[in-house]
Amino acid sequence: MTEDREADATEAPRTLLIIGGAEDKVGRVTILRRFVRLAGGRAANIVIIPTASSVPDEVVSVYSTVFSRLGVQDIGAVNPPSRSASSDPDLVARLDQATGVFLSGGNQLRLSQLVVGTPMGEALLRAYRRGAVIAGTSAGASIMSQFMISMGEEGVTPRQRSSQLTVGLGLLTGVIVDQHFDQRARYGRLMSLVAGSPSLLGMGIDEDTAAEIRDETELTVVGSGAVFVVDARSAITDAHEAKRDAPLLVSGAVVHSLPFGATFDLTTATLTHFVEKNADISVSFSRDRHDTAAAAAALRH
Amino acid sequence: MTEDREADATEAPRTLLIIGGAEDKVGRVTILRRFVRLAGGRAANIVIIPTASSVPDEVVSVYSTVFSRLGVQDIGAVNPPSRSASSDPDLVARLDQATGVFLSGGNQLRLSQLVVGTPMGEALLRAYRRGAVIAGTSAGASIMSQFMISMGEEGVTPRQRSSQLTVGLGLLTGVIVDQHFDQRARYGRLMSLVAGSPSLLGMGIDEDTAAEIRDETELTVVGSGAVFVVDARSAITDAHEAKRDAPLLVSGAVVHSLPFGATFDLTTATLTHFVEKNADISVSFSRDRHDTAAAAAALRH
Repeated sequence: MTEDREADATEAPRTLLIIGGAEDKVGRVTILRRFVRLAGGRAANIVIIPTASSVPDEVVSVYSTVFSRLGVQDIGAVNPPSRSASSDPDLVARLDQATGVFLSGGNQLRLSQLVVGTPMGEALLRAYRRGAVIAGTSAGASIMSQFMISMGEEGVTPRQRSSQLTVGLGLLTGVIVDQHFDQRARYGRLMSLVAGSPSLLGMGIDEDTAAEIRDETELTVVGSGAVFVVDARSAITDAHEAKRDAPLLVSGAVVHSLPFGATFDLTTATLTHFVEKNADISVSFSRDRHDTAAAAAALRH
Repeated sequence: MTEDREADATEAPRTLLIIGGAEDKVGRVTILRRFVRLAGGRAANIVIIPTASSVPDEVVSVYSTVFSRLGVQDIGAVNPPSRSASSDPDLVARLDQATGVFLSGGNQLRLSQLVVGTPMGEALLRAYRRGAVIAGTSAGASIMSQFMISMGEEGVTPRQRSSQLTVGLGLLTGVIVDQHFDQRARYGRLMSLVAGSPSLLGMGIDEDTAAEIRDETELTVVGSGAVFVVDARSAITDAHEAKRDAPLLVSGAVVHSLPFGATFDLTTATLTHFVEKNADISVSFSRDRHDTAAAAAALRH
């Protein structure tokens, strides 16, 4: 244990950039710019994985263009057409050189089928542990967790068996990651899964928003929406006995809506820091300060 | 104070039946049947208030038919066409005789405009306090609270100024009531209001679902969906300074999804009782009991 801890202490921080889908690609490009910076900026060696998508060539073309505009020169892609192809040593070697990996959107079950548990999946874990940043958007976000959400309806009331768990890449343990969270009203489906597995936190990420996670613990929010976290470890539920489609009892879950400017500790499930980035009262605050200063000056005379 | 308490103790229990809209009117009629029962069954004297609706005559016709089928003989309606008409002594006298009042759906701001603070509004408070059941669906649900929600977008991420408060009837203090909660994904708009007013509980009621509330304290869930309650009294928020439309910080709110079979204390904001009404494991449980009994019998030999 002591040796392991010492080894951990000397390792590079492990970084995930988990994106809720539909991140800006033509404006300020806040999130993809952050990815490039984490991957090493102009010196980055980026591998795009478009395997979840039904239009992989377009996906590679779009992200290559964006990363290239952001100054990256070394951009490649790997896209195994089958599970056996994920053992290809050339593909694994390409990932072993990456400083940043980007998993596209699409169908996350394609990634479970083709990548999880293969030499390619192991290469992704290796890259993550040696300090390469692993980013994923939409399906590429959900696949990162050990227990991955898939399927399910829209709505805010949690219902029995409205969604399901599948094995994901395992880069993030202890958290279920859902995406397009606000836009597709996925509160109910995420809540239904943590009701059944209360040892896991639920995390729902809005579009054009990312959870940047350091060492599986420190979460920082980037982008225009919010990251939702639910902690149902102390909740009372009937997920062990409710009938299919029945609304679930979930009483006492603790929830967090975290916008840009928030940092959160996933181990203790608490807000650690917040700096307001969306204030509109600076003017009235300034005026208040000015008036008070003027009154204080007048009183001194 | 002592006299007041003694007076309270001798009063009839005060009962609200707050319905999330679209309650069943042709099948098992669970919720409307409950209303009729609370109002006195066949002996009930029911007044329908269709004032929120743009089709008040149809509303009165539909509910009269349902209540009549459930055995009620004394069914009337009051529908003031203007605020001044809400002072009409005949209208007030009709409400003073009611054992049950039913407020229809529509636009709750019409009820704020025409009824709140008028002799008709006072008659509703009087009826409630003497033990008549007050039911309302959709707009008729929201109007019951002292601080009433109106307007707002769909979605689960709370955003600054995405909804607003108006003065309601004041039958229920300390709770904001939202409706069509699951179907219109109103989690975000309700959360944004309790973020700004954390002393209030937020309550979101699904369609075909009702919160039956006794003495402003004991909540029982009736119907096919769930009642959602959020308690943000211990949450950290930036609702005092976030910019319009910005996603809000709300960290540490406690949430409850309560299906049929749950009772909840609104004063302490805790689940008080739950009986599973939607189980599908009785068969496997029976088998488990049978197997265990058989093994025990075999071991005794």
